Amino acid sequence: MSTDGVRPMIAIREVGPRDGLQMVKAVMPTAAKIAWIDAMAAAGLRGMEVASFVPPHLMPQMADAADVTRAARQRHPALTVVALAPNLRGAQNAAAAGAQVVVVPVSASEAHSRANVRRSREDQVAEVARIVEAGGRDRPRIEAGISTAFGCSLQGTVPEDDVVQLGVALAEAGADTVSLADTLGYAAPAQVKRLVRRLRKEIGAERLGHLHLHDTLGTALANAYAGLEEGVRGFDGALGGLGGCPFAPGSVGNAATEDLVYLLESEGFDTGIDLPGLLEARALLAELLPSERLHGRVAAAGIPRTYRDAAPSLEAAQ
Amino acid sequence: MSTDGVRPMIAIREVGPRDGLQMVKAVMPTAAKIAWIDAMAAAGLRGMEVASFVPPHLMPQMADAADVTRAARQRHPALTVVALAPNLRGAQNAAAAGAQVVVVPVSASEAHSRANVRRSREDQVAEVARIVEAGGRDRPRIEAGISTAFGCSLQGTVPEDDVVQLGVALAEAGADTVSLADTLGYAAPAQVKRLVRRLRKEIGAERLGHLHLHDTLGTALANAYAGLEEGVRGFDGALGGLGGCPFAPGSVGNAATEDLVYLLESEGFDTGIDLPGLLEARALLAELLPSERLHGRVAAAGIPRTYRDAAPSLEAAQ
Repeated sequence: MSTDGVRPMIAIREVGPRDGLQMVKAVMPTAAKIAWIDAMAAAGLRGMEVASFVPPHLMPQMADAADVTRAARQRHPALTVVALAPNLRGAQNAAAAGAQVVVVPVSASEAHSRANVRRSREDQVAEVARIVEAGGRDRPRIEAGISTAFGCSLQGTVPEDDVVQLGVALAEAGADTVSLADTLGYAAPAQVKRLVRRLRKEIGAERLGHLHLHDTLGTALANAYAGLEEGVRGFDGALGGLGGCPFAPGSVGNAATEDLVYLLESEGFDTGIDLPGLLEARALLAELLPSERLHGRVAAAGIPRTYRDAAPSLEAAQ
Repeated sequence: MSTDGVRPMIAIREVGPRDGLQMVKAVMPTAAKIAWIDAMAAAGLRGMEVASFVPPHLMPQMADAADVTRAARQRHPALTVVALAPNLRGAQNAAAAGAQVVVVPVSASEAHSRANVRRSREDQVAEVARIVEAGGRDRPRIEAGISTAFGCSLQGTVPEDDVVQLGVALAEAGADTVSLADTLGYAAPAQVKRLVRRLRKEIGAERLGHLHLHDTLGTALANAYAGLEEGVRGFDGALGGLGGCPFAPGSVGNAATEDLVYLLESEGFDTGIDLPGLLEARALLAELLPSERLHGRVAAAGIPRTYRDAAPSLEAAQ
């Protein structure tokens, strides 16, 4: 542990119960989801995307979205409970269940937008505006999540100008924050830096949400580090790298949360997360999903004895 | 492919036939090694560490070191053939077989030095001096490889001052280049930047050799990116992430070469390597070592259609 003063904070949001489980064939029982969420909260996670409010016939894994959201709120007062909703109806259901943040996905790729939410990008921006307006005074925070921001398996390259323009339109539509998601894992570090810089310049630093980086091509941690250098202080992760993208065979989920925590703490940041406790939560997940192959190197190799020994902050190194 | 002019070059050295195979229980037949080396050379690899010149009773996988080195030289005139040798005798055998570069490992951790080469750090620096002196005018280039430069499973934290002092001593002993190896995979990006900067300042940029980064904790590509930003233009990789460290259970090998190539080309650099051809060489390796689990994400997910579409150089992004 570093003794040279206060370490800067980093917010890590666990998205496994949503982004991970929606890709798993098995339907995890509600009680198992809650036990898993409990274990992660016990390890110190303070932000968690726990469910997706979509029609159950489209995604039976999320049929208990309201129950899981309600349980997470009731059981963990210190937790910021996040839910995903693709439209107004889902957002209203998420709010009713107690979600404090609702992530609304908006694809930067027109092809992905139509495949994922069955709506054009333009219509989805209008949907965000409707969600904000309908929410009233006590509405949850609305986060527009720009998916395929770094490339798309259907469209191919996504022009950076499109992403920035979309981000501006979403801020104008009233989204409280706008986040960038590398849904396919195609991002490269310099691209992360450029887009973060451009979007922040347009919508302001306080409106820039988490970076959501998939590890499909093994680049998630390098991209996270690039974001970190560019000043990003919020990242999504999925325990055990659970997840993927339905439009990209062979894809995997977000950066494994445990590996992300290891990297960020090793860089001298304070995630507030107890890494051994997080590995216990991962062991529970492995038990609950015996047929899924989990990813992540820290779990395979164990936490090294040098963990946090030599961790002056990134700022100190520059 | 980027069309905005000449992309800066990056040198990738494949170390799988040495660092990878020495950790594999099976002994790969000489003809198989040569077929694998042929496939990697065909994919455009221009530097390859092909063997370790150690006593065969200690490492039967390397009993054919001279044959493999000789074959690599004869069959691939454009290839820089590298061999590892822990002492004068090994270096002389490597030179006799035609190695153009001899890597001499020197541990920054005293405990690792005694476990790995059965000699103190000081004695191993003296051995480097003996190797340089004995080599004469036509000797191979001597690269002192500082192992455990970023931490050690036996000693724990390795003070950065020790690494820098060792690097200076090795340069004074006559080593043509000095490289930094994260043998255990404990490095963090800011640490990579600091050590590269400090060592380069002491021994000069032209004397700083490749970065050798293991992926045991999943951080190899993030660390490579940090090195890249710090100006490093040479990296080691092991196809399929083959390898590990005998003193660290659960460890894995170097950054998977194919993932490293993907990252660097995506950043706008020219590795000279044909990625589909490299994946063919990896498929051959998998065939030749059916009992080994290979790593790496690009092989699992496939090369995305956006590969090198959006790759302005790192310099352009800064």
